[in-house]
Amino acid sequence: MIRYDFNSYNPATIVNYDEETTLLKNKIMNQKTMIDWLDINKCISDYELNKIIETANNIRNNYDTFVVIGIGGSYLGAKAVIDCFSPYFNHFGPEIIFAGNSLSSEYHYELLSYLENKNFAVNVVSKSGDTLETSICFELIMDLLKKKYSEEEIRKRLIITTDPENGTLRKLVNENYCESFSIPSNIGGRFSVLTACGLFPIAVSGIDIKELLNGAKNCNHENAYYYALLRDYLYKRGKLVESFTVYEPKLIYFTEWLKQLFAETQGKDNKGILPVSAINTRDLHSLGQYYQEGSRILFETVINIKESKELIIKKFNMDLNSINEIALHSVAKAHLDDNTYSNIIELDSLSLSNVGELIYFFELSSALGAYILDVNPFDQPGVNKYKEIINKSLEVSND
Amino acid sequence: MIRYDFNSYNPATIVNYDEETTLLKNKIMNQKTMIDWLDINKCISDYELNKIIETANNIRNNYDTFVVIGIGGSYLGAKAVIDCFSPYFNHFGPEIIFAGNSLSSEYHYELLSYLENKNFAVNVVSKSGDTLETSICFELIMDLLKKKYSEEEIRKRLIITTDPENGTLRKLVNENYCESFSIPSNIGGRFSVLTACGLFPIAVSGIDIKELLNGAKNCNHENAYYYALLRDYLYKRGKLVESFTVYEPKLIYFTEWLKQLFAETQGKDNKGILPVSAINTRDLHSLGQYYQEGSRILFETVINIKESKELIIKKFNMDLNSINEIALHSVAKAHLDDNTYSNIIELDSLSLSNVGELIYFFELSSALGAYILDVNPFDQPGVNKYKEIINKSLEVSND
Repeated sequence: MIRYDFNSYNPATIVNYDEETTLLKNKIMNQKTMIDWLDINKCISDYELNKIIETANNIRNNYDTFVVIGIGGSYLGAKAVIDCFSPYFNHFGPEIIFAGNSLSSEYHYELLSYLENKNFAVNVVSKSGDTLETSICFELIMDLLKKKYSEEEIRKRLIITTDPENGTLRKLVNENYCESFSIPSNIGGRFSVLTACGLFPIAVSGIDIKELLNGAKNCNHENAYYYALLRDYLYKRGKLVESFTVYEPKLIYFTEWLKQLFAETQGKDNKGILPVSAINTRDLHSLGQYYQEGSRILFETVINIKESKELIIKKFNMDLNSINEIALHSVAKAHLDDNTYSNIIELDSLSLSNVGELIYFFELSSALGAYILDVNPFDQPGVNKYKEIINKSLEVSND
Repeated sequence: MIRYDFNSYNPATIVNYDEETTLLKNKIMNQKTMIDWLDINKCISDYELNKIIETANNIRNNYDTFVVIGIGGSYLGAKAVIDCFSPYFNHFGPEIIFAGNSLSSEYHYELLSYLENKNFAVNVVSKSGDTLETSICFELIMDLLKKKYSEEEIRKRLIITTDPENGTLRKLVNENYCESFSIPSNIGGRFSVLTACGLFPIAVSGIDIKELLNGAKNCNHENAYYYALLRDYLYKRGKLVESFTVYEPKLIYFTEWLKQLFAETQGKDNKGILPVSAINTRDLHSLGQYYQEGSRILFETVINIKESKELIIKKFNMDLNSINEIALHSVAKAHLDDNTYSNIIELDSLSLSNVGELIYFFELSSALGAYILDVNPFDQPGVNKYKEIINKSLEVSND
């Protein structure tokens, strides 16, 4: 269960709420393309869901290492969910390595050497099939696979997740090369965590993906409408930065996923709130000073987790998780005194259904917020600008 | 060697540079307290340096795990430096665990269970000795030590880094409890990485700390003056956010250290640039869209590393590190077209002396920037606000 507390540490009142909401509902109902994520049944078919679970179990039973090659939407969502449910220490099950999310030669050099002696399988994830980082890492890993294994063995160890019809990777699948999953054409990268794109690596980690999907299905849309309008209220009053703040470090990558979702969905046309993150209480001893007393440009959206492991601290005769929660509310109170507002999202526990709901809540909110800003939620024209310059430079150097 | 390229992707011209610099030099020369970090010889004595190296070698030879308990300045600097020089995979030497930097009960519960079967030593780091997170983690770890070892054995395994004279931890040392190091009284937490505070854990990781200190000593102050004035030039023109951007993920925690340094040194009196970070090329597929086309409130300071491991990518017939660098300059060029300026700091390699110089460069710049904003570089009054509310709540609950 999730409680969306948007008013305890935030004095905003949304006037014209009903009219604004009606307008937004019309906009999203009239959206024709890139909107299939809104209906969880269109994210994944029952057939593909079962195939994912079966393939994931096969990976878990046969390999000690699982390499996921992908960047951006082909990476952040899966890592976000897996990290929420992975232990800090004493990991069990196959080691999951997310690769191809940088151009660091240090990283790739060490990765190749590490994998030499591992019994590993590979999932390469790219909707277009031509992402620069992904294709580079895929080249390096394929060379290693070819060095280690027969062609037949490679087919068993390679799973491709890509567009159902087009692109370099789909071509490879069509040549009957290996197992594959599809990212639905009408779902963009940053909205794809609940498609095969995210669900397959998540299933390999041992997570019950049906439970995750059930959480998303149960999301009450009204909270997302309210949150989207609230963000706009704050933005119009000079709050240009939103900090996604967590008090449980297992959510670090959930905040990274949020940064992509909001930056790409709304950051265009010289508009939008800059998404940043704070991992507390670590960052109370870092960004905390600025949040409290720096330029007044920031508000927070804080994720609180009510139930956690019991651990009594004798000095205070109190459970550690209660102390963590006291810190959270004390900080929100102190920030409010200095006009830094906080929205609190309270999970009764870090459960699969809560995380599923949270994913859907933020996806819907980010799209609604783009409509309010009057920008297209589903493109990313700014990304293309630097890509063109990179591609030109690579061609020139390659001549 | 480091090249500070502040003008290729940044059209700013600092008029009155000489006068402004003279003013700043007077301010820092007249600073009486908290300024000892400016003279590396005051950060650490030769005697203490040698004792650190000797103790670190002892730890490396006798224990498989080393737990550093600390938060904020007692943690970020050491982790930043260690991460720069640690492999991604196939780690060697004792495992270094940074604990006590959250109030997560999940984390501490799992940590205690993990350490049950480890042969570990502990360094507890806190200038005041009373930091909430540190004292909680220290209580838990001490209970485990007492469960596992005799009092004599605990004395061997515990090293305290704290104020030379005052506080709870110094009291423990004075009762002849264990080995200790001192954080000089006139150096604040966020300026303490080149004191025993950071140097001891760094030495345990196997790093040559003398080389690191030499780099800091060789820093040319002029670059820091120029950078500080440039940041102010951009700030006064509406650039309220600075992104510390790296293209090598080993620098992630270096950007976290930078965030603390600048947020706490300058974010006060309703002023200051908000420090954020981008880990590229990962975040080109995330924050990149916002940087290119979102609200025009941001500039970047980019760290480039010229030399890295060689790894040829056949598709482009090019070294991977060269591709990474092409990405960096392509992005800076694309950003400049949309009025997002970049300062480039170019390291010839990720060497100890370069990282030492970089630490000193940023410390000096951050203090100078605070003088320009007319705020005290060395206090953090905002942190005290929420601490008071937490402490009151803990007392009430404890009654």
